[in-house]
Amino acid sequence: MKSITSRDNAFYKELKQLSTSSQARRKAGQTLLDGVHLCQAWLDLAGAPLHCVVSEGALANPEVAAVVERVEGGRGHVTALPDALFGALSQVEHGVNLLFLVATPQPARPAVLTESAVLLDGVQDPGNVGSILRSAGAGGITQVYCSPGTAFCWSPKVLRAAMGAHFVLDIFENVDLPALVRAAEVTVLATSGYAERRIWDVDLRGPTAWLLGHEGQGVSAGLLELATHRVAIPHAGQVESLNVAACAAVCFFEQLRQRQA
Amino acid sequence: MKSITSRDNAFYKELKQLSTSSQARRKAGQTLLDGVHLCQAWLDLAGAPLHCVVSEGALANPEVAAVVERVEGGRGHVTALPDALFGALSQVEHGVNLLFLVATPQPARPAVLTESAVLLDGVQDPGNVGSILRSAGAGGITQVYCSPGTAFCWSPKVLRAAMGAHFVLDIFENVDLPALVRAAEVTVLATSGYAERRIWDVDLRGPTAWLLGHEGQGVSAGLLELATHRVAIPHAGQVESLNVAACAAVCFFEQLRQRQA
Repeated sequence: MKSITSRDNAFYKELKQLSTSSQARRKAGQTLLDGVHLCQAWLDLAGAPLHCVVSEGALANPEVAAVVERVEGGRGHVTALPDALFGALSQVEHGVNLLFLVATPQPARPAVLTESAVLLDGVQDPGNVGSILRSAGAGGITQVYCSPGTAFCWSPKVLRAAMGAHFVLDIFENVDLPALVRAAEVTVLATSGYAERRIWDVDLRGPTAWLLGHEGQGVSAGLLELATHRVAIPHAGQVESLNVAACAAVCFFEQLRQRQA
Repeated sequence: MKSITSRDNAFYKELKQLSTSSQARRKAGQTLLDGVHLCQAWLDLAGAPLHCVVSEGALANPEVAAVVERVEGGRGHVTALPDALFGALSQVEHGVNLLFLVATPQPARPAVLTESAVLLDGVQDPGNVGSILRSAGAGGITQVYCSPGTAFCWSPKVLRAAMGAHFVLDIFENVDLPALVRAAEVTVLATSGYAERRIWDVDLRGPTAWLLGHEGQGVSAGLLELATHRVAIPHAGQVESLNVAACAAVCFFEQLRQRQA
Protein backbone atom coordinates (compact mmCIF):
# COMPACT_ATOMS: atom_id res chain seq x y z
CA MET A 1 0.00 0.00 0.00
CA LYS A 2 1.30 3.44 -0.92
CA SER A 3 0.61 6.68 0.93
CA ILE A 4 0.04 10.23 -0.22
CA THR A 5 0.47 12.98 2.31
CA SER A 6 0.64 16.12 0.22
CA ARG A 7 -2.07 17.99 -1.64
CA ASP A 8 0.53 18.73 -4.28
CA ASN A 9 0.97 15.08 -5.23
CA ALA A 10 0.26 14.72 -8.94
CA PHE A 11 -1.95 11.62 -8.58
CA TYR A 12 -3.96 13.32 -5.82
CA LYS A 13 -4.53 16.34 -8.04
CA GLU A 14 -5.69 14.05 -10.83
CA LEU A 15 -8.16 12.34 -8.47
CA LYS A 16 -9.45 15.69 -7.30
CA GLN A 17 -10.11 16.75 -10.87
CA LEU A 18 -11.99 13.54 -11.60
CA SER A 19 -14.01 13.88 -8.39
CA THR A 20 -15.41 17.28 -9.31
CA SER A 21 -15.52 17.46 -13.08
CA SER A 22 -17.56 15.40 -15.51
CA GLN A 23 -15.46 16.91 -18.28
CA ALA A 24 -12.30 15.55 -16.65
CA ARG A 25 -13.92 12.09 -16.40
CA ARG A 26 -14.93 12.19 -20.03
CA LYS A 27 -11.52 13.37 -21.19
CA ALA A 28 -9.58 10.84 -19.13
CA GLY A 29 -11.95 7.98 -19.98
CA GLN A 30 -11.85 7.22 -16.27
CA THR A 31 -14.29 7.54 -13.42
CA LEU A 32 -14.40 7.24 -9.63
CA LEU A 33 -16.63 4.81 -7.78
CA ASP A 34 -17.48 6.06 -4.30
CA GLY A 35 -18.31 3.80 -1.38
CA VAL A 36 -18.20 0.13 -0.43
CA HIS A 37 -21.26 -0.99 -2.41
CA LEU A 38 -20.10 0.33 -5.78
CA CYS A 39 -16.55 -0.90 -5.24
CA GLN A 40 -17.74 -4.39 -4.27
CA ALA A 41 -20.03 -4.47 -7.28
CA TRP A 42 -17.13 -3.50 -9.54
CA LEU A 43 -14.93 -6.28 -8.10
CA ASP A 44 -17.75 -8.80 -8.53
CA LEU A 45 -18.79 -7.81 -12.02
CA ALA A 46 -15.84 -6.10 -13.71
CA GLY A 47 -12.68 -7.22 -11.90
CA ALA A 48 -9.80 -5.11 -10.62
CA PRO A 49 -9.87 -1.30 -10.51
CA LEU A 50 -7.02 0.80 -11.89
CA HIS A 51 -6.50 2.02 -8.36
CA CYS A 52 -8.10 1.70 -4.94
CA VAL A 53 -7.97 4.87 -2.82
CA VAL A 54 -8.80 4.75 0.86
CA SER A 55 -8.61 7.12 3.84
CA GLU A 56 -6.34 6.04 6.67
CA GLY A 57 -9.25 6.10 9.10
CA ALA A 58 -11.35 3.84 6.90
CA LEU A 59 -8.83 0.99 7.03
CA ALA A 60 -10.26 0.07 10.43
CA ASN A 61 -13.67 -0.60 8.81
CA PRO A 62 -13.90 -4.38 8.18
CA GLU A 63 -15.87 -3.97 4.93
CA VAL A 64 -13.28 -1.53 3.60
CA ALA A 65 -10.43 -3.75 4.77
CA ALA A 66 -12.00 -6.71 2.94
CA VAL A 67 -12.19 -4.71 -0.31
CA VAL A 68 -8.59 -3.53 0.08
CA GLU A 69 -7.51 -7.13 0.66
CA ARG A 70 -9.29 -8.29 -2.48
CA VAL A 71 -7.59 -5.57 -4.51
CA GLU A 72 -4.14 -6.32 -3.07
CA GLY A 73 -4.73 -10.06 -3.51
CA GLY A 74 -5.24 -9.38 -7.21
CA ARG A 75 -1.99 -7.35 -7.20
CA GLY A 76 -3.96 -4.11 -7.62
CA HIS A 77 -2.75 -0.69 -6.50
CA VAL A 78 -3.96 0.70 -3.18
CA THR A 79 -3.18 4.19 -1.92
CA ALA A 80 -4.02 5.51 1.54
CA LEU A 81 -4.68 9.19 2.24
CA PRO A 82 -5.06 11.15 5.47
CA ASP A 83 -8.80 11.60 6.17
CA ALA A 84 -8.60 15.35 5.50
CA LEU A 85 -7.17 14.82 2.03
CA PHE A 86 -9.70 12.09 1.25
CA GLY A 87 -12.59 14.34 2.27
CA ALA A 88 -12.01 16.62 -0.71
CA LEU A 89 -12.42 13.68 -3.12
CA SER A 90 -15.79 12.34 -1.99
CA GLN A 91 -19.25 13.75 -2.48
CA VAL A 92 -20.80 11.21 -0.13
CA GLU A 93 -21.51 12.67 3.31
CA HIS A 94 -20.82 10.25 6.14
CA GLY A 95 -19.39 7.85 3.56
CA VAL A 96 -16.85 5.16 4.31
CA ASN A 97 -13.95 6.85 2.47
CA LEU A 98 -13.27 4.23 -0.18
CA LEU A 99 -12.89 5.01 -3.89
CA PHE A 100 -12.03 3.02 -6.97
CA LEU A 101 -10.46 4.69 -9.97
CA VAL A 102 -11.62 2.70 -12.99
CA ALA A 103 -11.47 2.96 -16.75
CA THR A 104 -14.93 3.89 -18.00
CA PRO A 105 -16.21 0.86 -19.91
CA GLN A 106 -16.27 1.46 -23.67
CA PRO A 107 -18.44 -1.34 -25.05
CA ALA A 108 -18.52 -1.86 -28.79
CA ARG A 109 -21.65 -0.32 -30.19
CA PRO A 110 -23.90 -2.61 -32.24
CA ALA A 111 -24.47 -1.35 -35.76
CA VAL A 112 -28.23 -1.74 -35.42
CA LEU A 113 -30.68 -2.03 -32.53
CA THR A 114 -31.69 -5.71 -32.37
CA GLU A 115 -32.20 -6.22 -28.62
CA SER A 116 -34.26 -4.72 -25.84
CA ALA A 117 -32.84 -1.36 -24.85
CA VAL A 118 -33.51 1.92 -23.09
CA LEU A 119 -33.23 5.15 -25.09
CA LEU A 120 -32.89 8.29 -22.96
CA ASP A 121 -33.86 11.48 -24.78
CA GLY A 122 -32.69 14.40 -22.63
CA VAL A 123 -33.36 12.90 -19.21
CA GLN A 124 -31.61 15.51 -17.10
CA ASP A 125 -31.79 14.58 -13.45
CA PRO A 126 -28.88 12.34 -12.39
CA GLY A 127 -31.06 10.61 -9.79
CA ASN A 128 -33.61 9.75 -12.46
CA VAL A 129 -30.98 8.45 -14.88
CA GLY A 130 -29.45 6.32 -12.12
CA SER A 131 -32.81 4.91 -11.07
CA ILE A 132 -33.64 4.08 -14.71
CA LEU A 133 -30.32 2.24 -15.14
CA ARG A 134 -31.00 0.30 -11.95
CA SER A 135 -34.50 -0.67 -13.07
CA ALA A 136 -33.19 -1.63 -16.52
CA GLY A 137 -30.53 -3.85 -14.95
CA ALA A 138 -33.13 -5.52 -12.72
CA GLY A 139 -35.59 -5.86 -15.60
CA GLY A 140 -33.11 -7.74 -17.76
CA ILE A 141 -32.37 -4.96 -20.24
CA THR A 142 -28.69 -4.73 -21.17
CA GLN A 143 -28.32 -1.76 -23.52
CA VAL A 144 -28.75 1.95 -22.78
CA TYR A 145 -28.47 4.69 -25.41
CA CYS A 146 -28.35 8.34 -24.31
CA SER A 147 -28.95 11.48 -26.36
CA PRO A 148 -26.42 14.33 -26.04
CA GLY A 149 -28.70 16.22 -23.61
CA THR A 150 -29.02 13.35 -21.13
CA ALA A 151 -27.13 13.52 -17.81
CA PHE A 152 -23.58 12.11 -17.96
CA CYS A 153 -23.99 8.51 -16.83
CA TRP A 154 -20.59 8.20 -15.13
CA SER A 155 -21.07 11.16 -12.75
CA PRO A 156 -21.07 10.47 -9.00
CA LYS A 157 -24.83 11.03 -8.60
CA VAL A 158 -25.83 8.72 -11.44
CA LEU A 159 -23.41 6.05 -10.23
CA ARG A 160 -24.75 6.30 -6.69
CA ALA A 161 -28.38 6.08 -7.75
CA ALA A 162 -27.78 3.12 -10.06
CA MET A 163 -26.16 1.03 -7.29
CA GLY A 164 -23.85 -0.89 -9.63
CA ALA A 165 -26.26 -1.39 -12.54
CA HIS A 166 -23.70 0.38 -14.75
CA PHE A 167 -21.49 -2.69 -14.57
CA VAL A 168 -24.05 -5.05 -16.10
CA LEU A 169 -25.18 -2.62 -18.81
CA ASP A 170 -23.68 -1.51 -22.10
CA ILE A 171 -24.04 2.27 -21.94
CA PHE A 172 -23.66 4.42 -25.06
CA GLU A 173 -23.63 8.20 -24.70
CA ASN A 174 -24.00 11.08 -27.16
CA VAL A 175 -26.03 8.88 -29.47
CA ASP A 176 -27.97 10.20 -32.46
CA LEU A 177 -31.28 8.72 -31.31
CA PRO A 178 -33.31 9.58 -34.43
CA ALA A 179 -30.79 7.69 -36.58
CA LEU A 180 -30.80 4.77 -34.13
CA VAL A 181 -34.60 4.58 -34.11
CA ARG A 182 -34.90 4.88 -37.90
CA ALA A 183 -32.66 1.85 -38.37
CA ALA A 184 -33.98 -0.17 -35.42
CA GLU A 185 -34.96 -3.79 -35.97
CA VAL A 186 -37.00 -3.94 -32.75
CA THR A 187 -40.27 -2.33 -31.71
CA VAL A 188 -39.64 1.18 -30.39
CA LEU A 189 -42.16 2.32 -27.78
CA ALA A 190 -42.18 5.98 -26.83
CA THR A 191 -43.79 6.78 -23.48
CA SER A 192 -46.09 9.78 -23.54
CA GLY A 193 -48.82 10.97 -21.22
CA TYR A 194 -50.84 11.89 -24.30
CA ALA A 195 -50.72 8.52 -26.04
CA GLU A 196 -53.97 6.63 -26.55
CA ARG A 197 -52.54 3.14 -26.45
CA ARG A 198 -52.35 1.74 -22.92
CA ILE A 199 -49.13 -0.02 -22.03
CA TRP A 200 -51.18 -2.97 -20.75
CA ASP A 201 -52.73 -3.48 -24.17
CA VAL A 202 -49.42 -3.80 -26.02
CA ASP A 203 -47.68 -7.14 -26.52
CA LEU A 204 -44.32 -6.55 -24.88
CA ARG A 205 -42.93 -10.09 -25.06
CA GLY A 206 -40.58 -9.41 -27.97
CA PRO A 207 -37.50 -7.19 -27.93
CA THR A 208 -38.45 -3.60 -27.26
CA ALA A 209 -36.63 -0.29 -27.18
CA TRP A 210 -38.11 2.02 -24.54
CA LEU A 211 -37.89 5.68 -25.43
CA LEU A 212 -38.03 7.92 -22.34
CA GLY A 213 -37.93 11.69 -22.45
CA HIS A 214 -37.03 14.89 -20.65
CA GLU A 215 -38.62 15.42 -17.21
CA GLY A 216 -40.68 18.39 -18.33
CA GLN A 217 -41.10 18.15 -22.08
CA GLY A 218 -41.13 14.39 -22.51
CA VAL A 219 -39.87 12.66 -25.64
CA SER A 220 -39.10 15.17 -28.39
CA ALA A 221 -41.69 15.46 -31.15
CA GLY A 222 -39.46 14.07 -33.90
CA LEU A 223 -38.66 10.93 -31.95
CA LEU A 224 -42.29 10.46 -30.92
CA GLU A 225 -43.18 10.26 -34.58
CA LEU A 226 -40.37 7.86 -35.42
CA ALA A 227 -41.39 5.39 -32.69
CA THR A 228 -43.38 2.27 -33.65
CA HIS A 229 -46.04 3.15 -31.06
CA ARG A 230 -46.64 5.81 -28.48
CA VAL A 231 -47.83 4.29 -25.21
CA ALA A 232 -49.21 5.71 -21.97
CA ILE A 233 -49.46 4.45 -18.42
CA PRO A 234 -53.10 5.03 -17.48
CA HIS A 235 -53.77 6.97 -14.28
CA ALA A 236 -56.63 6.85 -11.82
CA GLY A 237 -56.26 10.05 -9.85
CA GLN A 238 -56.06 13.80 -10.30
CA VAL A 239 -52.31 13.52 -10.78
CA GLU A 240 -51.78 12.94 -14.46
CA SER A 241 -48.11 12.21 -14.87
CA LEU A 242 -45.36 10.15 -13.35
CA ASN A 243 -41.75 10.82 -12.66
CA VAL A 244 -39.76 9.50 -15.64
CA ALA A 245 -37.89 6.94 -13.53
CA ALA A 246 -41.18 5.70 -12.05
CA CYS A 247 -42.58 5.48 -15.58
CA ALA A 248 -39.54 3.49 -16.70
CA ALA A 249 -39.93 1.00 -13.87
CA VAL A 250 -43.61 0.45 -14.65
CA CYS A 251 -42.77 -0.19 -18.31
CA PHE A 252 -39.83 -2.54 -17.72
CA PHE A 253 -41.69 -4.65 -15.17
CA GLU A 254 -44.91 -4.80 -17.15
CA GLN A 255 -42.73 -6.25 -19.89
CA LEU A 256 -41.19 -8.73 -17.48
CA ARG A 257 -44.66 -9.69 -16.20
CA GLN A 258 -45.87 -10.40 -19.72
CA ARG A 259 -42.75 -12.45 -20.48
CA GLN A 260 -43.05 -14.52 -17.32
CA ALA A 261 -46.84 -14.96 -17.56
CA MET B 1 -49.92 44.49 -4.23
CA LYS B 2 -47.58 45.29 -1.37
CA SER B 3 -43.82 45.67 -1.54
CA ILE B 4 -41.03 44.75 0.80
CA THR B 5 -37.68 46.41 0.27
CA SER B 6 -35.79 45.66 3.48
CA ARG B 7 -34.22 42.46 4.73
CA ASP B 8 -35.30 43.53 8.21
CA ASN B 9 -38.99 43.36 7.40
CA ALA B 10 -40.65 40.96 9.87
CA PHE B 11 -42.67 39.08 7.21
CA TYR B 12 -39.57 38.69 5.05
CA LYS B 13 -37.65 37.22 7.98
CA GLU B 14 -40.51 34.81 8.60
CA LEU B 15 -40.45 33.70 4.95
CA LYS B 16 -36.71 33.24 5.10
CA GLN B 17 -37.03 30.98 8.13
CA LEU B 18 -39.69 28.88 6.42
CA SER B 19 -37.60 28.65 3.26
CA THR B 20 -34.63 27.08 5.02
CA SER B 21 -35.98 25.20 8.02
CA SER B 22 -38.25 22.17 8.13
CA GLN B 23 -38.56 22.77 11.85
CA ALA B 24 -39.89 26.27 11.21
CA ARG B 25 -42.42 24.84 8.71
CA ARG B 26 -43.57 22.25 11.21
CA LYS B 27 -43.84 24.76 14.05
CA ALA B 28 -45.72 27.35 12.00
CA GLY B 29 -47.99 24.77 10.37
CA GLN B 30 -47.18 26.59 7.15
CA THR B 31 -45.15 25.81 4.09
CA LEU B 32 -43.84 27.48 0.93
CA LEU B 33 -44.68 26.33 -2.57
CA ASP B 34 -41.96 27.25 -5.04
CA GLY B 35 -42.56 27.83 -8.74
CA VAL B 36 -45.41 28.24 -11.18
CA HIS B 37 -46.44 24.58 -11.39
CA LEU B 38 -46.94 24.05 -7.65
CA CYS B 39 -48.70 27.40 -7.24
CA GLN B 40 -51.07 26.70 -10.13
CA ALA B 41 -51.78 23.24 -8.73
CA TRP B 42 -52.58 24.76 -5.33
CA LEU B 43 -54.97 27.29 -6.90
CA ASP B 44 -56.66 24.52 -8.88
CA LEU B 45 -56.95 21.98 -6.09
CA ALA B 46 -56.86 23.84 -2.78
CA GLY B 47 -57.90 27.44 -3.44
CA ALA B 48 -56.26 30.66 -2.29
CA PRO B 49 -52.85 30.77 -0.61
CA LEU B 50 -52.26 32.71 2.60
CA HIS B 51 -49.90 34.87 0.63
CA CYS B 52 -48.39 35.08 -2.84
CA VAL B 53 -44.79 36.31 -2.95
CA VAL B 54 -43.18 37.29 -6.21
CA SER B 55 -39.97 38.95 -7.35
CA GLU B 56 -40.34 42.25 -9.16
CA GLY B 57 -38.56 40.85 -12.20
CA ALA B 58 -40.92 37.88 -12.41
CA LEU B 59 -44.00 40.05 -12.86
CA ALA B 60 -43.07 40.38 -16.53
CA ASN B 61 -43.46 36.59 -16.95
CA PRO B 62 -46.97 35.96 -18.34
CA GLU B 63 -47.45 32.70 -16.38
CA VAL B 64 -46.49 34.43 -13.15
CA ALA B 65 -48.68 37.42 -13.97
CA ALA B 66 -51.62 35.07 -14.56
CA VAL B 67 -51.14 33.44 -11.15
CA VAL B 68 -50.84 36.84 -9.44
CA GLU B 69 -54.04 37.93 -11.17
CA ARG B 70 -55.90 34.84 -9.98
CA VAL B 71 -54.74 35.46 -6.40
CA GLU B 72 -55.69 39.16 -6.50
CA GLY B 73 -59.00 38.31 -8.16
CA GLY B 74 -59.76 36.14 -5.13
CA ARG B 75 -58.81 39.07 -2.90
CA GLY B 76 -55.64 37.28 -1.83
CA HIS B 77 -52.46 38.96 -0.60
CA VAL B 78 -49.61 39.53 -3.02
CA THR B 79 -46.22 40.91 -2.04
CA ALA B 80 -43.45 41.86 -4.46
CA LEU B 81 -39.77 41.73 -3.53
CA PRO B 82 -36.65 42.99 -5.28
CA ASP B 83 -35.03 40.05 -7.10
CA ALA B 84 -32.04 40.02 -4.73
CA LEU B 85 -34.28 39.63 -1.69
CA PHE B 86 -36.36 36.95 -3.39
CA GLY B 87 -33.26 34.96 -4.28
CA ALA B 88 -32.58 34.12 -0.64
CA LEU B 89 -36.04 32.52 -0.31
CA SER B 90 -35.94 30.05 -3.17
CA GLN B 91 -33.99 26.83 -3.52
CA VAL B 92 -34.90 26.49 -7.18
CA GLU B 93 -32.05 27.51 -9.46
CA HIS B 94 -33.19 29.41 -12.53
CA GLY B 95 -36.70 29.37 -11.10
CA VAL B 96 -39.42 31.84 -11.96
CA ASN B 97 -39.40 33.59 -8.56
CA LEU B 98 -42.94 32.84 -7.45
CA LEU B 99 -43.86 31.46 -4.02
CA PHE B 100 -47.07 30.68 -2.20
CA LEU B 101 -47.21 30.72 1.57
CA VAL B 102 -49.89 28.20 2.53
CA ALA B 103 -51.23 26.56 5.66
CA THR B 104 -50.04 22.95 5.68
CA PRO B 105 -53.17 20.83 5.24
CA GLN B 106 -54.14 18.99 8.43
CA PRO B 107 -56.63 16.34 7.31
CA ALA B 108 -58.58 14.46 9.98
CA ARG B 109 -56.99 11.10 10.55
CA PRO B 110 -59.25 8.06 10.17
CA ALA B 111 -59.40 5.93 13.31
CA VAL B 112 -58.67 2.77 11.32
CA LEU B 113 -57.16 1.99 7.94
CA THR B 114 -60.06 1.02 5.67
CA GLU B 115 -58.87 2.34 2.29
CA SER B 116 -55.93 1.90 -0.02
CA ALA B 117 -52.93 3.74 1.37
CA VAL B 118 -49.18 4.09 1.28
CA LEU B 119 -47.21 3.52 4.48
CA LEU B 120 -43.67 4.91 4.44
CA ASP B 121 -41.35 3.31 6.98
CA GLY B 122 -38.22 5.46 7.16
CA VAL B 123 -37.99 6.44 3.49
CA GLN B 124 -35.28 9.08 3.78
CA ASP B 125 -34.57 10.60 0.42
CA PRO B 126 -36.84 13.58 -0.31
CA GLY B 127 -36.77 12.83 -4.04
CA ASN B 128 -37.96 9.29 -3.39
CA VAL B 129 -40.74 10.43 -1.05
CA GLY B 130 -41.89 13.01 -3.60
CA SER B 131 -41.86 10.51 -6.45
CA ILE B 132 -43.85 8.03 -4.33
CA LEU B 133 -46.47 10.68 -3.53
CA ARG B 134 -46.72 11.53 -7.22
CA SER B 135 -47.16 7.88 -8.22
CA ALA B 136 -49.72 7.37 -5.44
CA GLY B 137 -51.70 10.37 -6.64
CA ALA B 138 -51.63 9.07 -10.22
CA GLY B 139 -52.47 5.54 -9.12
CA GLY B 140 -55.63 6.63 -7.32
CA ILE B 141 -54.35 6.21 -3.76
CA THR B 142 -55.45 9.02 -1.44
CA GLN B 143 -53.87 8.35 1.96
CA VAL B 144 -50.21 8.43 2.98
CA TYR B 145 -48.93 7.54 6.45
CA CYS B 146 -45.32 8.29 7.36
CA SER B 147 -43.22 6.90 10.20
CA PRO B 148 -41.22 9.38 12.32
CA GLY B 149 -38.00 8.58 10.41
CA THR B 150 -39.45 9.38 6.97
CA ALA B 151 -38.44 12.61 5.20
CA PHE B 152 -40.63 15.61 6.06
CA CYS B 153 -43.24 15.69 3.32
CA TRP B 154 -43.66 19.47 3.20
CA SER B 155 -39.99 20.25 2.55
CA PRO B 156 -39.06 22.00 -0.71
CA LYS B 157 -37.46 18.92 -2.27
CA VAL B 158 -40.39 16.61 -1.55
CA LEU B 159 -42.87 19.22 -2.79
CA ARG B 160 -40.89 19.74 -5.97
CA ALA B 161 -40.59 16.01 -6.71
CA ALA B 162 -44.30 15.35 -6.07
CA MET B 163 -45.42 18.01 -8.58
CA GLY B 164 -48.62 18.89 -6.71
CA ALA B 165 -49.63 15.36 -5.65
CA HIS B 166 -49.62 16.62 -2.04
CA PHE B 167 -52.79 18.56 -2.75
CA VAL B 168 -54.85 15.49 -3.69
CA LEU B 169 -53.52 13.30 -0.87
CA ASP B 170 -54.24 13.11 2.85
CA ILE B 171 -50.77 12.99 4.36
CA PHE B 172 -50.24 11.93 7.98
CA GLU B 173 -46.78 12.25 9.50
CA ASN B 174 -45.14 10.86 12.64
CA VAL B 175 -47.49 7.90 12.57
CA ASP B 176 -47.04 4.82 14.76
CA LEU B 177 -47.04 2.39 11.82
CA PRO B 178 -47.03 -0.85 13.86
CA ALA B 179 -50.21 0.28 15.67
CA LEU B 180 -51.78 1.34 12.36
CA VAL B 181 -50.99 -2.00 10.72
CA ARG B 182 -52.18 -4.05 13.70
CA ALA B 183 -55.61 -2.40 13.55
CA ALA B 184 -55.85 -2.23 9.75
CA GLU B 185 -59.01 -3.48 8.06
CA VAL B 186 -57.32 -3.75 4.67
CA THR B 187 -54.68 -6.08 3.28
CA VAL B 188 -51.22 -4.79 4.16
CA LEU B 189 -48.53 -5.72 1.64
CA ALA B 190 -44.91 -5.17 2.62
CA THR B 191 -42.47 -4.97 -0.27
CA SER B 192 -39.27 -6.92 0.26
CA GLY B 193 -36.59 -8.18 -2.08
CA TYR B 194 -36.50 -11.40 -0.06
CA ALA B 195 -40.22 -12.24 -0.23
CA GLU B 196 -41.26 -15.39 -2.02
CA ARG B 197 -44.66 -14.21 -3.18
CA ARG B 198 -44.51 -12.42 -6.52
CA ILE B 199 -46.51 -9.23 -6.78
CA TRP B 200 -48.07 -10.52 -10.00
CA ASP B 201 -49.52 -13.53 -8.18
CA VAL B 202 -51.38 -11.50 -5.56
CA ASP B 203 -54.96 -10.32 -6.06
CA LEU B 204 -54.63 -6.55 -5.71
CA ARG B 205 -58.15 -5.54 -6.70
CA GLY B 206 -59.31 -4.82 -3.15
CA PRO B 207 -58.14 -2.02 -0.86
CA THR B 208 -54.46 -2.42 -0.09
CA ALA B 209 -51.99 -0.66 2.17
CA TRP B 210 -48.52 -0.64 0.60
CA LEU B 211 -45.71 -0.73 3.11
CA LEU B 212 -42.45 0.67 1.70
CA GLY B 213 -39.20 0.84 3.63
CA HIS B 214 -35.87 2.56 4.07
CA GLU B 215 -33.62 2.83 0.99
CA GLY B 216 -30.94 0.58 2.46
CA GLN B 217 -32.55 -1.56 5.12
CA GLY B 218 -36.03 -1.94 3.65
CA VAL B 219 -39.15 -2.34 5.79
CA SER B 220 -38.24 -2.89 9.44
CA ALA B 221 -38.44 -6.48 10.70
CA GLY B 222 -41.34 -5.87 13.10
CA LEU B 223 -43.51 -4.33 10.40
CA LEU B 224 -42.59 -7.04 7.89
CA GLU B 225 -44.03 -9.60 10.31
CA LEU B 226 -47.19 -7.59 10.96
CA ALA B 227 -48.00 -7.26 7.25
CA THR B 228 -50.62 -9.58 5.72
CA HIS B 229 -48.14 -10.65 3.04
CA ARG B 230 -44.59 -9.87 2.02
CA VAL B 231 -44.32 -9.43 -1.73
CA ALA B 232 -41.42 -9.08 -4.16
CA ILE B 233 -41.04 -7.66 -7.63
CA PRO B 234 -39.23 -10.40 -9.57
CA HIS B 235 -36.09 -9.41 -11.42
CA ALA B 236 -34.47 -10.77 -14.55
CA GLY B 237 -30.96 -9.41 -14.44
CA GLN B 238 -27.90 -9.32 -12.23
CA VAL B 239 -29.27 -6.24 -10.46
CA GLU B 240 -31.40 -7.54 -7.63
CA SER B 241 -33.13 -4.53 -6.17
CA LEU B 242 -35.03 -1.45 -7.24
CA ASN B 243 -35.06 2.10 -6.02
CA VAL B 244 -37.91 2.39 -3.49
CA ALA B 245 -39.80 4.93 -5.62
CA ALA B 246 -39.47 2.70 -8.68
CA CYS B 247 -40.72 -0.22 -6.59
CA ALA B 248 -43.70 1.86 -5.42
CA ALA B 249 -44.65 2.76 -8.98
CA VAL B 250 -44.52 -0.85 -10.12
CA CYS B 251 -46.78 -1.87 -7.20
CA PHE B 252 -49.34 0.91 -7.61
CA PHE B 253 -49.68 0.41 -11.35
CA GLU B 254 -49.81 -3.38 -11.16
CA GLN B 255 -52.75 -2.79 -8.82
CA LEU B 256 -54.35 -0.38 -11.28
CA ARG B 257 -53.79 -2.86 -14.12
CA GLN B 258 -55.54 -5.62 -12.22
CA ARG B 259 -58.42 -3.31 -11.34
CA GLN B 260 -58.90 -2.15 -14.92
CA ALA B 261 -58.42 -5.62 -16.44
